[in-house]
Amino acid sequence: MQNNEFIKAYAPATVANVCCGFDVLGFALDQPGDEVWARKTEQPGITITAIHGIDGLSSDPTENVIGVVAHKMLTDLHITHGLEMQLHKGMPVGSGLGSSAASSAAAAFAVNELLGKPFTTQALVLYAMEGEKKASGSAHADNVAPSLLGGFVLVRDYSPLDVVPLGVPLDLYCTILYPQIELKTSLSRSILKQEIPLKKGITQWGNLAGFMAGLLMKDYALLGRSLHDEIFEPERSILIPLFHQVKAAALAAGALGAGISGSGPSIFALSATLAQAQAVQEAMEKVYAHSGIDTKTYVSQVPDQGVRLVEQSLLQPAQA
Amino acid sequence: MQNNEFIKAYAPATVANVCCGFDVLGFALDQPGDEVWARKTEQPGITITAIHGIDGLSSDPTENVIGVVAHKMLTDLHITHGLEMQLHKGMPVGSGLGSSAASSAAAAFAVNELLGKPFTTQALVLYAMEGEKKASGSAHADNVAPSLLGGFVLVRDYSPLDVVPLGVPLDLYCTILYPQIELKTSLSRSILKQEIPLKKGITQWGNLAGFMAGLLMKDYALLGRSLHDEIFEPERSILIPLFHQVKAAALAAGALGAGISGSGPSIFALSATLAQAQAVQEAMEKVYAHSGIDTKTYVSQVPDQGVRLVEQSLLQPAQA
Repeated sequence: MQNNEFIKAYAPATVANVCCGFDVLGFALDQPGDEVWARKTEQPGITITAIHGIDGLSSDPTENVIGVVAHKMLTDLHITHGLEMQLHKGMPVGSGLGSSAASSAAAAFAVNELLGKPFTTQALVLYAMEGEKKASGSAHADNVAPSLLGGFVLVRDYSPLDVVPLGVPLDLYCTILYPQIELKTSLSRSILKQEIPLKKGITQWGNLAGFMAGLLMKDYALLGRSLHDEIFEPERSILIPLFHQVKAAALAAGALGAGISGSGPSIFALSATLAQAQAVQEAMEKVYAHSGIDTKTYVSQVPDQGVRLVEQSLLQPAQA
Repeated sequence: MQNNEFIKAYAPATVANVCCGFDVLGFALDQPGDEVWARKTEQPGITITAIHGIDGLSSDPTENVIGVVAHKMLTDLHITHGLEMQLHKGMPVGSGLGSSAASSAAAAFAVNELLGKPFTTQALVLYAMEGEKKASGSAHADNVAPSLLGGFVLVRDYSPLDVVPLGVPLDLYCTILYPQIELKTSLSRSILKQEIPLKKGITQWGNLAGFMAGLLMKDYALLGRSLHDEIFEPERSILIPLFHQVKAAALAAGALGAGISGSGPSIFALSATLAQAQAVQEAMEKVYAHSGIDTKTYVSQVPDQGVRLVEQSLLQPAQA
């Protein structure tokens, strides 16, 4: 590999929690997503020379998640040369779609490729989690793992990390509606109670087990009726304008289920076909049409693949 | 069908909770189990003419679960003829092995056969739950459903009842050690806290999802490391002498996992082969060898089938 060669990786947005799988379940989307470019430099240290697609993100490599992830990887390998990196944000920040996770996953993957793949996928999850720790203060894996692995991913445990790729046993399409309001993950987490009623816990894990059975036994109806959250959604949905109307509209339009994506404010709905997901998109958009709140919507198959190389070239990064 | 024809049904013992699936997961054993005999009588009403294998169970049909289950079925069908029933207990009561569930399941199945199968399996679960309600005060389904359906069964929800048969996607063998101490389900339930820490809830549903993935994706190692319960086992195990030693011995002997069966005092362990399950049995028995507490042990494949007809004959019931 030549020194001036750029590696360009794309990592997709992700939906974490998925109603009944709070903190343990997530899945990948096809788009939106982020790109990270990386190439070796002779001088040591990491420089971020461009950030496209968004304003206001720091290019300080100790502040931007792509720099944080890359730095940890280089340090652990005792590598003395440096890196030049660029970030191309293709998705909104603070949307509940795993924005920092997508950047972190793309960075971990790009740097690993650049260095000749010294790390396993499991290790890349751990490195990408360093980005999450920087972004949100907690090194969770339920966004970075599906962004790296694609499909549905279970994070069974953290000590030690136990990431279980579930793939996409049955065709699923996701509709996302992102209301462009500001909602800090820290606020959305801070309103959660630290104790839950046993009865609601039982309902929640019954639904998660039902979701797993629906997914792995290819039973759309079971999957759909398991997409239920009676612990967190009631608390968090008050922070999302029109949430209940959007959810009801999605279900009425034929979605299998719907809920808050991650900690919000994005709302996701799962459908069995692309046509259904598009009808759901229309129904969800309609609810917000005269709300005065701008929205972005995305329709995406849940893909088997997560992060991937987009291009491996000698092009100058400025032509991205 | 002639009036004097007897239907004889066998329903197996079951293990509920299965560490991480409190109140929602159960599986069937091959043995031990109960038999229920039933035949039509011209005079109305239900009479229980014999109870074998155990002392002290009431033969009053309004008190014994087999009478309660049968009465509800006859009433719902507006049937005016009566039933003669016999119960052959093949398993201990109050053992945590779903003793009342096995009797209830056998009764529901036998009566349904006798009447020409008017009820679906789903309905039989509901009738057998009437027996559970009589026995324990709460109409739970996590024992009766696997006793009726065989294999692993998920009870996703109760309103309405959503029973999901999971089958036995991979060979599993269960070792049971039943320490013959008295432990009331009501006591074992009463010591449980009605609020649980969110953090432990997340661990629990992560493990249940891991168990589902291990079972349905045929991954013994994942299934094994998901057999963990940090909410209920610490509270309930104090009621079971030598619990931690038995569990440790089972794991050291090669079991995939072990825990409390139902609300105890029986301890179950799952293994991948029969030889392993037998080695586990030996190790578990050894712990109790000089304890002064009598034990019974059982080794059983987890079978695909639950309740079944044993015999359909014109024999007199006394010859059971």
